[in-house]
Amino acid sequence: MFPISFGSDNHSGVHPKVWEAMHKADSGFCPAYGDDPLTQKVLKQLEWLFGGGCEASFVITGTGANVFALQNLVSSFHAIFCANTAHINVDECGAVQKFTQARLKVIDSPNGKLSPEMIYPHLMTNRDQHHSQGRVVSITQSTEYGTLYSLAELKALADFCHQQQMYLHIDGARLANAAAALGCSLKEMCKDTGADIVSFGGAKNGLLFGEALICYHPELCANQRFYRKQCSQLFSKMRFIAAQFEAYLEDDLWRKNATRANEMAALLASRLKQIPQVKVTQPVMVNSVYVILPRNISPSLMERYHFYMWNEALNEVRLMCGYNTTEEQIDSFVADLRSML
Amino acid sequence: MFPISFGSDNHSGVHPKVWEAMHKADSGFCPAYGDDPLTQKVLKQLEWLFGGGCEASFVITGTGANVFALQNLVSSFHAIFCANTAHINVDECGAVQKFTQARLKVIDSPNGKLSPEMIYPHLMTNRDQHHSQGRVVSITQSTEYGTLYSLAELKALADFCHQQQMYLHIDGARLANAAAALGCSLKEMCKDTGADIVSFGGAKNGLLFGEALICYHPELCANQRFYRKQCSQLFSKMRFIAAQFEAYLEDDLWRKNATRANEMAALLASRLKQIPQVKVTQPVMVNSVYVILPRNISPSLMERYHFYMWNEALNEVRLMCGYNTTEEQIDSFVADLRSML
Amino acid sequence: MFPISFGSDNHSGVHPKVWEAMHKADSGFCPAYGDDPLTQKVLKQLEWLFGGGCEASFVITGTGANVFALQNLVSSFHAIFCANTAHINVDECGAVQKFTQARLKVIDSPNGKLSPEMIYPHLMTNRDQHHSQGRVVSITQSTEYGTLYSLAELKALADFCHQQQMYLHIDGARLANAAAALGCSLKEMCKDTGADIVSFGGAKNGLLFGEALICYHPELCANQRFYRKQCSQLFSKMRFIAAQFEAYLEDDLWRKNATRANEMAALLASRLKQIPQVKVTQPVMVNSVYVILPRNISPSLMERYHFYMWNEALNEVRLMCGYNTTEEQIDSFVADLRSML
Amino acid sequence: MFPISFGSDNHSGVHPKVWEAMHKADSGFCPAYGDDPLTQKVLKQLEWLFGGGCEASFVITGTGANVFALQNLVSSFHAIFCANTAHINVDECGAVQKFTQARLKVIDSPNGKLSPEMIYPHLMTNRDQHHSQGRVVSITQSTEYGTLYSLAELKALADFCHQQQMYLHIDGARLANAAAALGCSLKEMCKDTGADIVSFGGAKNGLLFGEALICYHPELCANQRFYRKQCSQLFSKMRFIAAQFEAYLEDDLWRKNATRANEMAALLASRLKQIPQVKVTQPVMVNSVYVILPRNISPSLMERYHFYMWNEALNEVRLMCGYNTTEEQIDSFVADLRSML
Repeated sequence: MFPISFGSDNHSGVHPKVWEAMHKADSGFCPAYGDDPLTQKVLKQLEWLFGGGCEASFVITGTGANVFALQNLVSSFHAIFCANTAHINVDECGAVQKFTQARLKVIDSPNGKLSPEMIYPHLMTNRDQHHSQGRVVSITQSTEYGTLYSLAELKALADFCHQQQMYLHIDGARLANAAAALGCSLKEMCKDTGADIVSFGGAKNGLLFGEALICYHPELCANQRFYRKQCSQLFSKMRFIAAQFEAYLEDDLWRKNATRANEMAALLASRLKQIPQVKVTQPVMVNSVYVILPRNISPSLMERYHFYMWNEALNEVRLMCGYNTTEEQIDSFVADLRSML
Repeated sequence: MFPISFGSDNHSGVHPKVWEAMHKADSGFCPAYGDDPLTQKVLKQLEWLFGGGCEASFVITGTGANVFALQNLVSSFHAIFCANTAHINVDECGAVQKFTQARLKVIDSPNGKLSPEMIYPHLMTNRDQHHSQGRVVSITQSTEYGTLYSLAELKALADFCHQQQMYLHIDGARLANAAAALGCSLKEMCKDTGADIVSFGGAKNGLLFGEALICYHPELCANQRFYRKQCSQLFSKMRFIAAQFEAYLEDDLWRKNATRANEMAALLASRLKQIPQVKVTQPVMVNSVYVILPRNISPSLMERYHFYMWNEALNEVRLMCGYNTTEEQIDSFVADLRSML
Repeated sequence: MFPISFGSDNHSGVHPKVWEAMHKADSGFCPAYGDDPLTQKVLKQLEWLFGGGCEASFVITGTGANVFALQNLVSSFHAIFCANTAHINVDECGAVQKFTQARLKVIDSPNGKLSPEMIYPHLMTNRDQHHSQGRVVSITQSTEYGTLYSLAELKALADFCHQQQMYLHIDGARLANAAAALGCSLKEMCKDTGADIVSFGGAKNGLLFGEALICYHPELCANQRFYRKQCSQLFSKMRFIAAQFEAYLEDDLWRKNATRANEMAALLASRLKQIPQVKVTQPVMVNSVYVILPRNISPSLMERYHFYMWNEALNEVRLMCGYNTTEEQIDSFVADLRSML
Repeated sequence: MFPISFGSDNHSGVHPKVWEAMHKADSGFCPAYGDDPLTQKVLKQLEWLFGGGCEASFVITGTGANVFALQNLVSSFHAIFCANTAHINVDECGAVQKFTQARLKVIDSPNGKLSPEMIYPHLMTNRDQHHSQGRVVSITQSTEYGTLYSLAELKALADFCHQQQMYLHIDGARLANAAAALGCSLKEMCKDTGADIVSFGGAKNGLLFGEALICYHPELCANQRFYRKQCSQLFSKMRFIAAQFEAYLEDDLWRKNATRANEMAALLASRLKQIPQVKVTQPVMVNSVYVILPRNISPSLMERYHFYMWNEALNEVRLMCGYNTTEEQIDSFVADLRSML
């Protein structure tokens, strides 16, 4: 274990209130697989938080959340549009394709975002039996580049999808960070924009594990309990995912954790911008800072602060802040960096 | 939550030492996905416990453990032999077939067990291009009926598999209960018998979640990290699975928990056998008791003790004991049952 | 090439009228993939022959026809019920499972046939997330044992399927032989009984290749052109499948060929029944004769007449007649057999 | 049927010698699925033609040939590199991904060709469990743009693949056209360059149907008969594919047909280049001509000559010549085009 890491928001541990809630749930016996009152209660809370008219369910991992969400939307002859940077494209070892049998159509994006204009030309071949049929636009909010879709951009994408008989899926592994940054509610970001299916991540924001899936179309989630079992994402002692989310929702812990991580990244970026030898490369909107370091510096700093290379050609690295990143850690990092210059 | 349940060993909560170990692991930051020293240490301990010459890895769920294990062994044109009662046949919603593309060949078994004699006739069509090719025999130890393979029976199956160019997979969701009942080590049960790939369950024996997979063939597990990611079973904050297994292995907590559950089932069975109106239907070797109750009794007793119907035609029910089942709970159950007769 | 074979009805060649029709279609250029007037015309004829209110399409192989038909009916969490003898169970190397991701639930049948009573007990677990959900009953008409479903039996199965929200699929590789034997029209056998999707085989009854799929539910075949392409069953020079079926339908060539094959099998059976040392084991309803031969006889006879062993334990062999089997060939076989006794 | 078409080389019919050979093979009975002497003989001829040390097998369709070839090379965690124009990317409705579970990594190419330099950057993430592992480079020879890899380029790609522990697959739907254009033997193009698995198409060059697959690695094709059956590509009356290839190989009919188609395309291109209002956009190396027509012309000309739009934005169309395209047809087309200007 390290005293400090800018490697990922999943390098952080578990928030004390989350442990507390799990302990509270550990009294006596309890039916498994979600047939317990705590799970039922917390799912209702989640549905309320996302604006109602939706169905919430729990899965275990982020990859699982994406596989499960997309399986609800596609058959094997469908195509899922995503940005080249999308987690489902680069970081899931082909899990979505293997499980759903559908294909990804990958669209190059300079900042991790998609727009209707970028997708439209790919729909020309719909209805021809030789071609996979566009069915879903899958976006990440906030994106893998730490950028954000505005509410208006989300609405434009959802409207476009629906005009084209497609669905909008949001990979929300960092949805909390996005809502904190945009200062909006989850209902405003998801229901009011017209998103069809959304994941709400926990593991990168202070939970031990657990993601919620919010589906706004009853007919799309009619069979989802079977798919969840098939993708090994039905957790047996479900009360302990529910307990984590109970703590997550209480007093908006999810927003507080995300706000803190976002603030630390903003602070880190502002400090780094004062150093002429380094260059912050992306707008810092949530909890990541992309920065080009002088070449002689990164290896030893990396060892101490456990961050990852993003683009070897540019010596660009990614610095992530978590819910428990502190100002002292940032001070220490900046001081060490300066001393090396 | 209930004060009492004979519904399943996953109705129990989490052992205090397991919570303790997780808390201890929650200090500061830590690399994700298993690249941390605690995970590496506990995997080594597991490999030692299973006799060495093997590779251990962690997955999240029991379904995941089976899917992952079998994917290492098969291509899509292979057949996996299993008993009709096998969890992979009846309780995983087709997860193994969907993920591996291979097929199950289901063999009827009166007691949940398979033998070489039962499998041999199905191998006639091997080598013919029109037929799925037998590749794996998948057994459950202890079985879904609470029966056990002896060490000699395991060895006979493994030898048969190897003579036929097949592998032996053990679904060990309750491997601890089996080892406790047989009074043998995990090495004696798995390595010395010749099993090829074995799961070692935790969730049904006092962990929050987590299963270990033990693979005795380096060439079979060469690509398993990719398959694990693909089946959504790569846990991000892996140190917390490792911590649970650290507690599980320390002072043989796994064996103590299993022994306790087995003893409670034996006690329950012995009490039930004294009641002439009920009939225990299977030998009680581990932690389950199958019993036929008079028809007028089960519904109200079921509500109070949360157990499940096994065979409606016979009014046969299944009573499961967990690591935290107590003598008082058994007294209470038997007294309630007697008072209803 | 052999002058004689009782091995399979696909050991026969191609009917002269089928060649003729293909030659006629080979004039000049033609759009590929079915966008030609001949294909459109013959599909309409097929739809009329099957009673209308259906959609016909062409595929290439019998395995393809089954994979394609079933893919229209299932998602990965579904189960397909079939008899243990079914071609999709034993003779397609797992193709249906691999392509559809659904699972087969195999029901032992003494004569290759299924009934509602045999299927009903397997539907108990429908709606439970741990279990594959029964969705299709797949039968073969005539069966792999040469037995037949009566029209009343077909109707009872279809009614049962629909009551249980399931579909009835008929693998009709030898549908022509069945209609010839039952003396009914294809409409009476398929539409009037309530079957949902039916294949109509050609290769075993005098075509070079080609099967037609008849789907009675527009919503089930809405996406079938994509699935057909995905399973490599979209034939490029489609006019030549259409031409074969044009010849097949003209003057009921399909029925004439099948009637001839059926009659030859009946003749063969009647001759064999006169020989006390052999035993015909199944009712001879279509074009196959199952017969137990004295052990010393079969190998050399097999070499000469190219038939296959069916059940080694019993020395039971299968003798198949094709559209071009002759009385002389039967005389020769029976004479040779008698001379060996 | 049309007297004329520049739509595709599969708009042509069947060469008379191919019909002849099929008729010759239609004498009496014959074992199915390739267990006949003619199939065995012609496969040996193919192996000799491709330089020996390889295993040939027959499949039915071009999509089937690609699915089958690639399934021999990949597991689900692998990636297959291909050009954006590749048939497996745009024209097979996701068949390769569905069947193999592997993913395509699509690389933009201006002329339909790939080079080691284009692929190398994508191999950075190999060995990381989060990423699909590069395993195959799949190219088309001649490409979908009618361009060609030189022998040196093929060798460079094969060498690169082998250095990177990858395989080189050639989609040879128009391999005959490529060999005719390069003036080389199939051995020189495939074996001597180091290709690992190659398809040799027939349907676009005068056969009724049928493709051969040539595999240069015995260990890669050890299980291919099972995969062929699984992908519905095992033809029952195999002697008739063999007969077609017998005619195709005799007196190099494959090369003669391809040469003719190539020559007609060259002639067509040379005529078009004399018309100032049209622009030939790609080098004409095999049997296709890509040309930009004035906008007012194409619709009515299209109706008469049945060719397809390639790039609507540019009004670029594709004109394909087949083995039976005649000089008169080209004269007619050019005259009609001129008269419309």
